[in-house]
Amino acid sequence: MLRVGINGYGTIGKRVADAVAAQPDMEVAGVAKTRPNFEAELAVERDYPLYAAIEERAERFADAGLELAGMVEDLVEESDVVVDATPGGIGEQNKPMYEAYDTPALFQGGESADFVDASFNARANFEASVGADYVRVVSCNTTGLSRLVAPLQEHYDVQKVRATLVRRGGDPAQTGRGPINDIVPNPISLPSHHGPDVNTIFPDLAIDTLGLKVPATLMHMHSVNVTLGDEPTAEEVRAVLEAETRIKVIREEEGIDGAGKLKELAQDVGRPRADLWENCVWGESITVEENANAGVDLYLFQAIHQESDVVPENVDAIRAVAELADAEESVRLTNDALGLGF
Amino acid sequence: MLRVGINGYGTIGKRVADAVAAQPDMEVAGVAKTRPNFEAELAVERDYPLYAAIEERAERFADAGLELAGMVEDLVEESDVVVDATPGGIGEQNKPMYEAYDTPALFQGGESADFVDASFNARANFEASVGADYVRVVSCNTTGLSRLVAPLQEHYDVQKVRATLVRRGGDPAQTGRGPINDIVPNPISLPSHHGPDVNTIFPDLAIDTLGLKVPATLMHMHSVNVTLGDEPTAEEVRAVLEAETRIKVIREEEGIDGAGKLKELAQDVGRPRADLWENCVWGESITVEENANAGVDLYLFQAIHQESDVVPENVDAIRAVAELADAEESVRLTNDALGLGF
Amino acid sequence: MLRVGINGYGTIGKRVADAVAAQPDMEVAGVAKTRPNFEAELAVERDYPLYAAIEERAERFADAGLELAGMVEDLVEESDVVVDATPGGIGEQNKPMYEAYDTPALFQGGESADFVDASFNARANFEASVGADYVRVVSCNTTGLSRLVAPLQEHYDVQKVRATLVRRGGDPAQTGRGPINDIVPNPISLPSHHGPDVNTIFPDLAIDTLGLKVPATLMHMHSVNVTLGDEPTAEEVRAVLEAETRIKVIREEEGIDGAGKLKELAQDVGRPRADLWENCVWGESITVEENANAGVDLYLFQAIHQESDVVPENVDAIRAVAELADAEESVRLTNDALGLGF
Amino acid sequence: MLRVGINGYGTIGKRVADAVAAQPDMEVAGVAKTRPNFEAELAVERDYPLYAAIEERAERFADAGLELAGMVEDLVEESDVVVDATPGGIGEQNKPMYEAYDTPALFQGGESADFVDASFNARANFEASVGADYVRVVSCNTTGLSRLVAPLQEHYDVQKVRATLVRRGGDPAQTGRGPINDIVPNPISLPSHHGPDVNTIFPDLAIDTLGLKVPATLMHMHSVNVTLGDEPTAEEVRAVLEAETRIKVIREEEGIDGAGKLKELAQDVGRPRADLWENCVWGESITVEENANAGVDLYLFQAIHQESDVVPENVDAIRAVAELADAEESVRLTNDALGLGF
Repeated sequence: MLRVGINGYGTIGKRVADAVAAQPDMEVAGVAKTRPNFEAELAVERDYPLYAAIEERAERFADAGLELAGMVEDLVEESDVVVDATPGGIGEQNKPMYEAYDTPALFQGGESADFVDASFNARANFEASVGADYVRVVSCNTTGLSRLVAPLQEHYDVQKVRATLVRRGGDPAQTGRGPINDIVPNPISLPSHHGPDVNTIFPDLAIDTLGLKVPATLMHMHSVNVTLGDEPTAEEVRAVLEAETRIKVIREEEGIDGAGKLKELAQDVGRPRADLWENCVWGESITVEENANAGVDLYLFQAIHQESDVVPENVDAIRAVAELADAEESVRLTNDALGLGF
Repeated sequence: MLRVGINGYGTIGKRVADAVAAQPDMEVAGVAKTRPNFEAELAVERDYPLYAAIEERAERFADAGLELAGMVEDLVEESDVVVDATPGGIGEQNKPMYEAYDTPALFQGGESADFVDASFNARANFEASVGADYVRVVSCNTTGLSRLVAPLQEHYDVQKVRATLVRRGGDPAQTGRGPINDIVPNPISLPSHHGPDVNTIFPDLAIDTLGLKVPATLMHMHSVNVTLGDEPTAEEVRAVLEAETRIKVIREEEGIDGAGKLKELAQDVGRPRADLWENCVWGESITVEENANAGVDLYLFQAIHQESDVVPENVDAIRAVAELADAEESVRLTNDALGLGF
Repeated sequence: MLRVGINGYGTIGKRVADAVAAQPDMEVAGVAKTRPNFEAELAVERDYPLYAAIEERAERFADAGLELAGMVEDLVEESDVVVDATPGGIGEQNKPMYEAYDTPALFQGGESADFVDASFNARANFEASVGADYVRVVSCNTTGLSRLVAPLQEHYDVQKVRATLVRRGGDPAQTGRGPINDIVPNPISLPSHHGPDVNTIFPDLAIDTLGLKVPATLMHMHSVNVTLGDEPTAEEVRAVLEAETRIKVIREEEGIDGAGKLKELAQDVGRPRADLWENCVWGESITVEENANAGVDLYLFQAIHQESDVVPENVDAIRAVAELADAEESVRLTNDALGLGF
Repeated sequence: MLRVGINGYGTIGKRVADAVAAQPDMEVAGVAKTRPNFEAELAVERDYPLYAAIEERAERFADAGLELAGMVEDLVEESDVVVDATPGGIGEQNKPMYEAYDTPALFQGGESADFVDASFNARANFEASVGADYVRVVSCNTTGLSRLVAPLQEHYDVQKVRATLVRRGGDPAQTGRGPINDIVPNPISLPSHHGPDVNTIFPDLAIDTLGLKVPATLMHMHSVNVTLGDEPTAEEVRAVLEAETRIKVIREEEGIDGAGKLKELAQDVGRPRADLWENCVWGESITVEENANAGVDLYLFQAIHQESDVVPENVDAIRAVAELADAEESVRLTNDALGLGF
């Protein structure tokens, strides 16, 4: 059993821990956290050894009645692989610690692509991370775009991607984030950094992205245009996407009109934390229009669950780094263990 | 095994069905729905026999590939007790159908109190519904207030309750409801109807309520003042509330600042649909202040999960109507089967 | 002085009335309203003769202490031109009344384009409505897109427009509209009806649009891509847009990050009702990117004030219908009278 | 003419500047700002001499093409009275500067009451600030409560005030503030600091307050209970409030259901920045209920415009400090100059 440490036990970290615990070939070596709260209490209840991420605050755990297994350095030493799920920018600061203990590490999409060996998406470029030491699992939005682009590229000669990312302002429990009543260009200058981030997965892809921030918390929404060199019908594109295991194509009969009903569905089927690990593409929205300069213009809407779509990707990236399985086997193992697909 | 039919399979109905299925002494006879959607599909997946609530729309289920067990009248005939979880006002229209088949029925808090034998809260007046034919489980807000008032009355001589109910504008999946950016007196004329509704449980209680509607979807928030004839300390009141099985007193160490983190906690502990069946009272908020005219003024905040706090109450009301258990035993059975308390 | 009647005195109607009253060559013959409220009271205070739009409700105005000048038919007879600012779909029902009194009429963008002589945008096709009897001023979104496309077409060989319209869920005072916390594809099927609506102004334009609805009330936001046959720089495009009188290019030094600050600016300069009659384009967002199949891809964000951008257009359409001025003179008169430009 | 300097030219400062400019007995000596933006540009357009509040950033104004009249110290020296409208806590840091130039100063409600000579509300305690050097105009919420309590105290023997303040999360242009979808106890511990703040105006008043924060930007909403020793009818209380010049009692016929329509009304009547300087009390909400321990319980809802209700109070406080007029004359002058009442 591969021993996986998780440094940072917040929105992503706690999900990755549970996902690791559900796999047949790995186990949770422990989790590191900066301060005690209900999440720390639940880590202990789940028998995840709890480590303090910041030495000066270690006694606050004791004050809250929580027993520590040690400091984060101990966890790094204990682990075969570490998943760094700390806030954006902290991961890079942690890298020397992972190097000191010679422990391979995964970072999240909030980190720069510059200090890692590879950026990772299971569907598009698993191989680039096999045996690597430092790998970055790309952000929720880049993951969502990569899963969509990969099959389109294989089938239809993608010429250009244009996407407007209408992003949720904050996660459901982030009471300090806004906006309350605005639609905010973010960033204002175009194109946004999301396109170049997709290029860490698809170096030669022509892609321009725009970002907006709105007063919603449940999921991001992508308004996507892909100019294709070929001329498939909408039905053909839909069939291609339906064949993907990490894309859910929403059927008309489901009566789902937005992110609220998608989360309701996830709750009703019993998903842990009502997570939607898949891109959620509205089947009705998939459309192909004439393009005078190329084949056709494909349009569609997809909703992306910012809290969880990278979770199966992290699990696969662990296998890539530890050379536990190839892409196909890893994805199958992960999907089965978590229960993807509905 | 008592056979329970559920008429209306939306927010409340689907939760009651799952709660019934989890009990040792009852089973789901079937569920009736007005139209096919993802919820109907999942009812079938859970092996709840599916009935059409509206004859003219029955064929739409077939069109959606869903097999029906019959019409709602068949379900009523099949059932020992029916839980009517249809939208407010429809329950009253359904009563003649329940009478025609001589099937006892529960109604929800959106119905008038005038056409039933008793209004029900497990903590406060279970006995009034024992053996009754038509019982109304009071609304989420009235349930929340009743659970709070009952122990205070038993301990501290409640003289008057004043509560401002800051209500969520709609449930998470109700995309058509507002307001988007307003705080709306609702109703404008005071006191609101919520106080008289609490009087269906506590006929002699002096209570004045005010209602507001705000752009939030997760939970209602009650700002509560109770004038007590006695003079307990805040710590004493807190201990009394902590002893209640359907009140969660939020501890300071949990770091919970609003409904978002409460739902996050419910997700993290694995509650089905992240339901919070308990009143959630902030421990820090429980305060006792001087009152020149009486004992003391007690203040506190409690959050109420509008989608689920009545679910255990419905289960208990079934037992009351069917005379399956007394209050204490029923509450214990329900709490154990669902997993209340954290 | 041309006598203009306004049928429908809500969000658009009251603004059009004030804009008409501000012109040197027209006056308000009266306004028709369905029911008394603060807006009706203010119409009386402004000396706009008040007419009842619905005979059966006429006495409600008397009950509210408001004197009526007559019924809407009287207003139509009195007027040289009527501006119909009733809710979408009602305008078409009113057309026979305007025909009966032989009064030319303008309709709003919520109406079908099928029953009018022409659809109108002052910048793009003023001439099509000169002397026409029934003219439709296109919607706020179509107006905003038309103002942008017109100068681009004139300068840079527009090959295709792709726009995602991120729409406010409701106006600030519409407390009944949602969503509260969602991003809703609206419509789900693509492309949206907005593109064909732009084709009522530019019949040969290749345009695909997508619509989303979000929990915001202040302005719509357009995420725009225009594939140009020519290859201008971003600076050149910006200069072209800055030369337009109904486009405000937001300067970096203004420090405006969203619709909230735009409205704040409009308040601070003393605009009536804080109206933003102009398209508001972020200067920083104007960007030109490579396009392998054509000249270049232009991107930009523009905010559109749904309550007011059609107001100067209605004034110009009145002049077109009544043949009071040509496009250039009308736009100059309107802009001067209202005070456009900042 | 009294020369008034305004230090801090944001939400409150710009409104106070315009209000001062509208008075017959005072003029704007200048305004100090920390950085250039559209507000700074508009100050220059209005001929308010512009001063830099922070020396190190002074050159940024020149870079933005804005000419400075000097540094804030120059403004303080130039002024007979300074209104400090800087963010909460900065005012206290500025006090030594005002002392150094021997210039009397007003501070806003975000400052502590400890370092000033008096806290101020025009209706309740104008006299306490006459001739004082350092005066604090209490916050929007305290101003709103003080205006309500003063007439009730005079007429009906106020025994206790209990108020839940449902506060807007941020102002309309504050895109960085939340919550997006939550109702947040703020503060969690009770009673909130608002009650003691009201006691700076009414030292002997028994008042307990509770605060919540919600995703709305337009106005705060107060849910108010006042236990009265006397037993007036609701109509009598309403008449008392209608006689107040800084309370607007909303009439049923106006059809106003929330803050959105109140702002719409303010826009329609042409209020600068759609400001609502008055407490807005729903007439329908004024209710009197039985109280077994005292006279009666009065309930009502009032909406408070956080951006502007303190503006006329600042003008009056200037007159108090400068001994330009007594309370009655000052309030009359201010109201007439601004145009209060509708």
